[in-house]
Parts: sequence; C-alpha cells; structure tokens
Amino acid sequence: MEPGLRSRPAEPGRCVSGPPGDGSAFPVDLPSGAGAQPGSLPGAVAAVLPAGGCGERMGVRTPKQFCRLLERPLISYTLQALERVCWIKDIVVTVTGENMEAMRSILQRYGHKRISLAEAGATRHRSIFNGLKALAEDQPDCKLTKPEVVIIHDAVRPFVEEDILLRVVIAAKEHGAAGAIRPLVSTVISPSADGCLDHSLDRAKYRASEMPQAFLFDVIYEAYQQCSDYDLEFGTECLQLALKYCHRKAKLIEGPPDLWKVTYKQDLYAAESMIKEKISQEICVVMNTKEEESIGRLLEEVLRNELNDEQKLQESLGQGAAIIAALVKERNSAFAGQLLVA
Amino acid sequence: MEPGLRSRPAEPGRCVSGPPGDGSAFPVDLPSGAGAQPGSLPGAVAAVLPAGGCGERMGVRTPKQFCRLLERPLISYTLQALERVCWIKDIVVTVTGENMEAMRSILQRYGHKRISLAEAGATRHRSIFNGLKALAEDQPDCKLTKPEVVIIHDAVRPFVEEDILLRVVIAAKEHGAAGAIRPLVSTVISPSADGCLDHSLDRAKYRASEMPQAFLFDVIYEAYQQCSDYDLEFGTECLQLALKYCHRKAKLIEGPPDLWKVTYKQDLYAAESMIKEKISQEICVVMNTKEEESIGRLLEEVLRNELNDEQKLQESLGQGAAIIAALVKERNSAFAGQLLVA
Repeated sequence: MEPGLRSRPAEPGRCVSGPPGDGSAFPVDLPSGAGAQPGSLPGAVAAVLPAGGCGERMGVRTPKQFCRLLERPLISYTLQALERVCWIKDIVVTVTGENMEAMRSILQRYGHKRISLAEAGATRHRSIFNGLKALAEDQPDCKLTKPEVVIIHDAVRPFVEEDILLRVVIAAKEHGAAGAIRPLVSTVISPSADGCLDHSLDRAKYRASEMPQAFLFDVIYEAYQQCSDYDLEFGTECLQLALKYCHRKAKLIEGPPDLWKVTYKQDLYAAESMIKEKISQEICVVMNTKEEESIGRLLEEVLRNELNDEQKLQESLGQGAAIIAALVKERNSAFAGQLLVA
Repeated sequence: MEPGLRSRPAEPGRCVSGPPGDGSAFPVDLPSGAGAQPGSLPGAVAAVLPAGGCGERMGVRTPKQFCRLLERPLISYTLQALERVCWIKDIVVTVTGENMEAMRSILQRYGHKRISLAEAGATRHRSIFNGLKALAEDQPDCKLTKPEVVIIHDAVRPFVEEDILLRVVIAAKEHGAAGAIRPLVSTVISPSADGCLDHSLDRAKYRASEMPQAFLFDVIYEAYQQCSDYDLEFGTECLQLALKYCHRKAKLIEGPPDLWKVTYKQDLYAAESMIKEKISQEICVVMNTKEEESIGRLLEEVLRNELNDEQKLQESLGQGAAIIAALVKERNSAFAGQLLVA
C-alpha cells in the first residue's frame, strides 16, 4: 500500500448541503444536482452502522472496517461521508466490546461528531437491532431522539454520497422502506446438494441489494421486534424483514457503482486508489496557526478571483474542506504541499 | 494510476508446470500444491476468450479488456496467465473487427504465442460460439485441432491460476461441464414491475458463477449449435446451455477471490495494485546481451547458493521468468533495478 506515501488524513468536512446547523432538520432546499425529488420530506433522520464484523473474508486479522487506507481506518471515511450530510442528526455505530476502545480512539483522533456507540451483536441483524434500540424511546437507556426515518449503511462502503442517501430517505418516507440496488455482475446459480448446477437465474430479472437502505423507524423497529431468532441469526436482508413482518414492499433505487462493499483484499486496494483520486480532485486550503490562516485566506482570495463565481467557489470549498484541518499541525506537511500542487 | 511509475512489462513466462514442450499433452505430473486430483486426464485442451465487449459499465471509451495497467493492456495479463500453463494448446480470442488490428499489435508487442484470433459476435454467447467454431473440425476454415476439453475464460480476469484451471478441466472431463463459483457478496433480490421488492433470495443457497469454466468440447459445441437465438442474444451462462441442451449438470468448483471480473473503474485500480504486488514478490533475473546474460548467470549462482535447494530455485525462477525478458532492452532499466532490489 505505498509505504513511501505518508499522509495524515482529513477531519470530517463541512456539510455539503447548505450551511452548518444543528443537523436536526431535513433540508428543504435540496442540494443542486442531487437528482432526488423533494416529495414528502421526513422529520429527523438518523443512521445505524453495524461495524461488528470480523473481516474473515478479507483474509487478514484486522476487521476490514478498521483496516487502514492512507493510514486512516476505513470506517472513518464512511463516518466522514455521513457527517457531511447535515440532515442526518445522529449516527449510531455498533461495535464489539473488544473493539469499543479502539473505536472511541478513532472518533477522537479524527474529530468525528454526532456519533453514538452501541454494543454489536453476534450477527449483522443483531447488531442493527442493537443500533435501533439505542434510538428507540421505549428503551430504558435511550439517550437519543427517536427519528422518523433511519438509514442503515455499511461501515465498509465509504463512498456513499448525499444524493443516494436523500433518494432512499425520501422513498422510505413514502414506502416505509427503500434500498439501493445494482445490476448483477455475475450470473447467480443454484447448486444442488451434490455440488452441481441445479439452475441458473436470468440475470436481467434480479438485482444485487446494496446499501444504504432507509426505513420509517417504526416499521423497521417493529420488524426487528417481531422477527425470529432464525432471522436474527441467518438473515442478511433488512428489506426482507420489513416485507415479511410489516408488509412494506421496499422501493428499490439504482445506486452508483462506487457504492460497492469493501470485502476482499483487492477491494482495499481499489478503495485506497479511489480515496487518492478524490483527494487529488479536491481543493486544499491550509490553515492552522494564525500565519497559516492568512495563507488560507490568501489562497481563497486567489481562487475567488480566478473562479469569479461565489456560488461555485463555496461549493468547491465545501467539498475541499475535508482535506483541510489536520494536515499542517501534523508531521506530514510535505503531503499537504503535494495536495496544494495537485 | 501512478503516472510517475513507468514500466515495460514482462513477456509471457515459462510454463509453470514442468518443462516447456509443444503444449499438446495434458500434464501427467501435476504441479505440486495444485490441490487438484489427477482423476481421468483429458487429451488436448484449448481455451476460448471472448473479448468483444465494449466496456460500457466501466464508463470509459476504451473497452475494459484494452485498458492499460502499468502501460500494458489488461487482456495481455490474462493471455500471459493462460500461456504459462503448458497443457493449454491453443487459445482463441474473439475480437470485434474494429479492434482486430489493435489486438494483433498487442500479440506482437508482448510476444504472445499460441493465440488465434476470431471475429467476435454481437453478444457474449455469439462470440464464444465463434471461438468454438474456430476449433471445430466440421468448419471449412478450421485451422486448429479440435480439443477434447475447452476452457472458456474472460479476458478481464487476469489473475487466473493453473490450479483452478486444472480443477475445472478435470471436472469437465468427468461431468461434461464445470465452472468456478464464489459466495455471493450481496443479497440478491427480485424486483416487481413497479420497482419495489418482490422477494429476496437466501444468500446461503446461491452462488455467483465466475470463470474459468470448462467443457467437453463436443458437449458445449452441441449446446451452442442447438440453442435458440434468444439464448445467443440474452443468455449469460454457458453452464446453463450445457444443462438445457445436453443435459449435463456442471460441477461447481469454489474458486479463489482474485478470480473477480474487472468491471468498473475501481476494479481497474484494484487490478493494477494486485499486479504491482505480484511483481514485487517475483524474483527478477536480468538478461539480454551477452554481458547481461552473465549477470543473470551470476545472480542465479548467488541465488542457488543462498537457497541451496535446486527444486525451490527452479520453481522460483519459473515464476520469476515473467519479469525477465523485455526489461533491459527497453528504456525502463531503472524499473528493472527496482525489481531487483525488491
């Protein structure tokens, strides 16, 4: 993984959609180019990220959500992507007891806000259920506000954008449940008991269910309360629980290809290259000490004159903000210089 | 993609399994650690690589099989992987008319042997059928020998190893058809006509059908001759054709994760990183002019003394041979130096 390249990655960026606020309100002004239609806007939105997996498919000891890309844990990029969206009020991450302290360190180290931690369960569904309990008002230890809509996302899908989050949330408000899908890359087949082909599925008639998904909170919480131990132990699909126990047919929404789940070693390579590419495309303003702040202001001034377009500049700076903060005070100021050149 | 790193990649390496021969005989001595059991060994083996795709899912103009990784087209790595396996006698690549000249240049540029080109069809199945026709003795323009077993592989799966090729070929000899499979990464769902969830499949009961696949030639050729225009136009699964038209239930063989198909931009990033990793793990012996040959012999001598194990050395040199030939005569001798250091 490019041992020669050392970087100290970014703190979470400014909210992309509109000015920073308390994050409690869903945006009435949709971000330009979001692609989603306003529809009937929900109230408070929260997110649950199950992060209790052990990463056995990766073939490495470190659970994949804690694997480092450019020295920063994968999950931190995913949290950053969610934190950039102002209208997600609370983010609950479920982590195993043994990783709880490491997770707390990550939150502190990378300046994550709006994150609450809950104990992961033994399976994915049990972890999500625990995350929902942390948001439910009927729980004795509930400290958070029950949202109208809850997003469920994977800790290992760091490239989620506001547009797809917005679209699943709006669809969940209308249908009770919604989820991102992608076309199948490989044909899906059904093996017989003797390890031979029983039949293959018509690829055009099926889709891969991806993340993010969103639900009316009461729908998915009811589904988890009703579902069987077998579902909690072996189930893989939240949309199916909403259908089976609450009779809500989830709206399926075509997502972009970079929603893919980091699962194998090659996915880590791909994710690292994607992060490098995104960094190289972002505008970097360096500021920390007073002197450096003035450099930042100077650079902003130059950019303003160059772009001569206040709105475009604001958008660019909003996106670029993810790169700003931690660079100068850390030892890797050389990397900050590279970014400026890029 | 690391524009600063320039390399002139390798020519096809020596056969991994046993000494170079005419390639017509299937190896009786299986490579150590291959994992496959000898079973009933087939006669001549050929391979068909459909490479007529336009790469629309990649979102780039260049078809993905021709995208360059470390300056070398992706398909050349895949051909190299197949050429390293001595017992694959002929490799038929199907290419569209407009890419035929480019493909010929690639074959010449990277010193590929045992490759025949055939015209691709408008769909994947038509391309494979054309490749099979080039191997069938009943065709008037057939110049190749009909094999007993034919491997079908994708041009965009460059990391195929001899072990999985051997296992599908042996299973095809026994069952008539065989193919590599992988566990599903995402749950597969069936949408209803209104774009909502109809039902989700139990992930544990299904598998992703990958490549390579292998068939008794007469079985798959018969299947393609019998199959409908609808199959040729919309079908995606060769194993299904063998089942439907020749009643052969394909043996399914669990393959390694690096069999994945390069489909999206992130896959290109992943593939490039994997290639870099493999190069850094290989032993490099530099030889071209007489002087350099003596350097190569000296290095071999040192390695022999170090390793003190003739068999281990032969294996290492066999694997490393892929890196040898083109490096010194090209301008990138600095890269050769890096490899030696690595």
